[in-house]
Amino acid sequence: MYRTRVQSRSAGRPTRDDVAKHANISGATVSRVLSGRTDLSISPETRARVLEAAEKLGYRPNPAARALTSGRTGLVGLWMSFDYSRYRGQVVDHLRTVLSQTELALAVTDVDKEYTTVHSFDRPLRVPVDGIIAFDNSASIEAFAREHDRLAPNIPFVSMGAYWSEAQSFVGVDLRAGADEAMEHLLSTGRRRISYMAPWTSDLIDSGPRYEAYIGKMGAAGLPTSTIAFERVSYALIKEALVQRHDAGTLPEAILCMNDDVAIAASYVLEGLGVKTGQDVALVGFDGIEETEHCPCPITTVRQPVEEMCSLTYQFLQSQMNDSTAPPRQRILKPELVIRESTRG
Amino acid sequence: MYRTRVQSRSAGRPTRDDVAKHANISGATVSRVLSGRTDLSISPETRARVLEAAEKLGYRPNPAARALTSGRTGLVGLWMSFDYSRYRGQVVDHLRTVLSQTELALAVTDVDKEYTTVHSFDRPLRVPVDGIIAFDNSASIEAFAREHDRLAPNIPFVSMGAYWSEAQSFVGVDLRAGADEAMEHLLSTGRRRISYMAPWTSDLIDSGPRYEAYIGKMGAAGLPTSTIAFERVSYALIKEALVQRHDAGTLPEAILCMNDDVAIAASYVLEGLGVKTGQDVALVGFDGIEETEHCPCPITTVRQPVEEMCSLTYQFLQSQMNDSTAPPRQRILKPELVIRESTRG
Repeated sequence: MYRTRVQSRSAGRPTRDDVAKHANISGATVSRVLSGRTDLSISPETRARVLEAAEKLGYRPNPAARALTSGRTGLVGLWMSFDYSRYRGQVVDHLRTVLSQTELALAVTDVDKEYTTVHSFDRPLRVPVDGIIAFDNSASIEAFAREHDRLAPNIPFVSMGAYWSEAQSFVGVDLRAGADEAMEHLLSTGRRRISYMAPWTSDLIDSGPRYEAYIGKMGAAGLPTSTIAFERVSYALIKEALVQRHDAGTLPEAILCMNDDVAIAASYVLEGLGVKTGQDVALVGFDGIEETEHCPCPITTVRQPVEEMCSLTYQFLQSQMNDSTAPPRQRILKPELVIRESTRG
Repeated sequence: MYRTRVQSRSAGRPTRDDVAKHANISGATVSRVLSGRTDLSISPETRARVLEAAEKLGYRPNPAARALTSGRTGLVGLWMSFDYSRYRGQVVDHLRTVLSQTELALAVTDVDKEYTTVHSFDRPLRVPVDGIIAFDNSASIEAFAREHDRLAPNIPFVSMGAYWSEAQSFVGVDLRAGADEAMEHLLSTGRRRISYMAPWTSDLIDSGPRYEAYIGKMGAAGLPTSTIAFERVSYALIKEALVQRHDAGTLPEAILCMNDDVAIAASYVLEGLGVKTGQDVALVGFDGIEETEHCPCPITTVRQPVEEMCSLTYQFLQSQMNDSTAPPRQRILKPELVIRESTRG
C-alpha cells in the first residue's frame, strides 16, 4: 500500500514521531512542516531535513488516523455564497492568510437561499470540520442557529459579517449604521430623487441592512422610493437598466448601489452615456474594495473592516475549539463611510 | 440525540425511505430535495411536502452513514489558489452552477507553491472527496501526478486550466498559443519597447505560458525584454511601479499584463497620469473577464473558454467516478484573442 525505503523502527506505517527521530528534530516542528504550515519561523534548512526524512521513511499523511486519535480533522468550514463579488474574494483571501499561520485548513462550501431548512445543510455538512465560519449569509445563520444542536452538536460555530444570531458567537458588521450614514450624507447634499440598485435575483433587492436604511431614510424625508433592478451583476445588464432610464429621461439624482462592483459598473455606463458621476448622478457603493479609490471617478463607499473581522472571527472560533462549554463571544464592528468624488458636485 | 415527533415505521433513526413513504413521493425525488438540489423540475409544492414530512419524522442528514453504504461522500474537492483575481471568482461561481444540477457539492481548498512535495497535500486531502478538480495550479498538478497512487489511490482527478499532466485527465487551455498570438498582434502594430508586468511574489513573474510567449517572441524579433514588477495586485502598488517609470521617462510602448485585473488597474493609473491607453501605451490583459469590454478604455485580452472548460471538466470527472478503470480523458481548448482599443492608436 505504501513504499518504505528505510524501514521505520515501529511496526507498520511510519508516523510523524518516526520522522522526528530520523531527522533529529522536535515532534512539534515536524508536525508543523508536515501540516504544510507556512510559518516564517521554520528555516528552509529545517524544512528540507524534515521532508527528506519523511521521504526516506515513506511517510504518508493519514488524516483519518489523526482524526481518530486527536478527535480533530484540522479543517474549518467556511460557508458562504459563491455568487461572485470582489469583496467576497478578498475576504476569503484574507481568511486564508490568517489560517496559514495555524495548522488549520479552510474548506469553502456554498450556501444559498435554499438553505432555509435543516435538510438543506446536507451539502456543507458533508465536510467533516473542527469549526464553522458562516460569512454574510442570513438564511443559513438563522436556520443553523435554530437547529445547531440537532445538526452539528459540539461543532464550534461563528458567524462573520452582516448577519448574526444571539444564540451563537459572532463578529458582526453593523451595515445598517453604515447605510444610514450613507443615506444621510446623500440627503445632506440636497439630492432627492434617490434610487436603490440591486439584482432582482438577490435577497438584497428588498431586504437587508442597505435596503432597510434606504427605505427608512427616504420615508423619514417624505420622499418616494424607486428600485433599479437587473438580473445579475453583469456590465451588459446594468448598462441595459441604466440606458433605459437615460433614454426615458428618468435617471435619478443619486443611486445607492448594492455593492462596489455594481457602483463601479454603473460609473462606467454613465461615462459611456456622457453622464457625469457625481455632478449629474451621485453613486454610493458598499464594501470598500480598493478599486473604489483608484477608478476614474473615485466612489463613495461604506468600507467593511475586513482585517479586524477575520482576525476576531478566528480568535472566537479558536476559543470555542479550545473550550466548547464557554459562552458565545460576540462583537459588532462599525463600517466606515468613505466620501469621495462620486457624491460631490 | 434527535427528536421525533411522529414515530417512523423502521426502528431507529428515520431514513429517506421513511420520508418518501410518509410523503407519498418517490425516493428519487425525496433524495433530490434532501440533498439541497436546485433542480427547476421539482415543484415548490413537492419540495414543501418532502420537507414537511422530513420535519415531522425528525429526519436528520447523516453523511457518514451515507458514505459507508454508498462509498461516496458527495463532495468534489476544488484545489486552487486563493490569491484573489476576478477570473478565479468567476470560474468558481460557474463550476458551482454546473454542480448545482447534480447531487455533488464543491469543497474548495487552497493550494499554493508550498505544495511541491507530497507531504504538503495534507491540507486539501483532509476533505474526504469523491473526486478532485485541480484548477490552474502547476505545482500541485505535477506533484500530485507523480504521487497520486500513493496519496489518493482511486480518487478521480481532473486538472482544469493552464497546467496538465499526461498521466491524468485534463481539460487544458492553451494559454501559450493565446499569448503568442497577443505578442504577434502587438509587434504587428509596430510596437518595440514592450514590457511584461506581474507581481514578483507570483510564479508567473518568470515562468508560465504568458512569460514564455513574451520572452520567445521578443527574442525572435531581436528585442530586449523588460519586466515591470510589483509586490502583489493592488492599485497602490501598480501605481507606484508605473509612476516611477513615468517620472523617469521610461514607460514602455506596450505592456503584456499577467491578467485583466492588472491591465485594468494599469489603465486607471495611466489615465491618472494623463497617459492615453492605446495611443501612448498599449495594454494587453489575460482571462477575458467581462469588465475588459466595458471599462473606460476597453482592454485587448486573451479570453479563456470558461463555460466549455467547466462543463467538460465535470463530464471527465463524472466518467472517472463512474468507471475508475477508464483511461484518462484529455482535451485542450484554445483561448481567443479579443482585440480592443487598448492596443489601437
